[in-house]
Amino acid sequence: MVKKNNGQHYDEFYEMFLDQLRDIYNAETEIVKNMPKMIEAAKSKELKDAFKKHLTETKGQKDRLEKVFSLLGADPEGEECEAIKGLLEESEEVIKHRYPPFVEDAALIGAAQKIEHYEIATYGTLRTFAHHLGLEEVESNLQEILDEEGKTNKALTKLAEGNWITSGINAQAVSR
Amino acid sequence: MVKKNNGQHYDEFYEMFLDQLRDIYNAETEIVKNMPKMIEAAKSKELKDAFKKHLTETKGQKDRLEKVFSLLGADPEGEECEAIKGLLEESEEVIKHRYPPFVEDAALIGAAQKIEHYEIATYGTLRTFAHHLGLEEVESNLQEILDEEGKTNKALTKLAEGNWITSGINAQAVSR
Repeated sequence: MVKKNNGQHYDEFYEMFLDQLRDIYNAETEIVKNMPKMIEAAKSKELKDAFKKHLTETKGQKDRLEKVFSLLGADPEGEECEAIKGLLEESEEVIKHRYPPFVEDAALIGAAQKIEHYEIATYGTLRTFAHHLGLEEVESNLQEILDEEGKTNKALTKLAEGNWITSGINAQAVSR
Repeated sequence: MVKKNNGQHYDEFYEMFLDQLRDIYNAETEIVKNMPKMIEAAKSKELKDAFKKHLTETKGQKDRLEKVFSLLGADPEGEECEAIKGLLEESEEVIKHRYPPFVEDAALIGAAQKIEHYEIATYGTLRTFAHHLGLEEVESNLQEILDEEGKTNKALTKLAEGNWITSGINAQAVSR
């Protein structure tokens, strides 16, 4: 893949983009390691299933990022994502707290949505950076991951909130 | 303020809600401490001004949270937010890296938007929890903070992306 060179600071912008791309690659790797704990901790079948589906998706996103790195001829390793450490620690705190089942599920959804939003912010920025760098194929791959994260976040909201037929996990947590 | 009591686990759900509310209160406190560094690091006047405005807003949000705690008759202190530590560390890494000015500004906007999204996810969840707990006044206060965070996030996107009259910071970072 050939990089466009528009200006004096293209290379430094590109390096900054690569740093951030490695950062989210590390984050996805940590999420893949951590998701089994969240799957185990989830009490309702719906949430367990949603987390399982998300683990599969996250693995796919990691593969897609590897494809992006290979398009760029760059190594995906080399950055540690400090933010994801803290975000995952929050979900571990929820698990350790041993709330009653539905309360725990409501808190786990909250923790998972914070992670989703972190990813949405990150891929949103990276997709835009790729656009400015003229890296079209990279941009479209990042856009696809961004769209997936958006869908996951909406699915988690739906699970928490329920719909007009079934009450969601939040309502069950309060009323049970 | 009187709490509704709908079910067996209302109290545990309420305690979980309070834990998370203390968590974001700690996060806002840390953001207030950290923002001056971001203001100093921002190179363009527009970004400096946006961060200054956000610092004022964040202080207002902290005050509003204190009002919420006082409505609930609860102490705002007692939780440490692990996620914000990592998120703020990311913005410090950007500053330490010493990218060229516009590249740094683009990266700083990215870091700030990750923090915004963290807050959006958190207040979104907390507002919904308050709703299920029947805490109407708390819910409306949290909704107002959520709306403010949403606006800040959009303003940062506009700053990065520019409009049809002026090119944004991202475009300037690549082309200068």
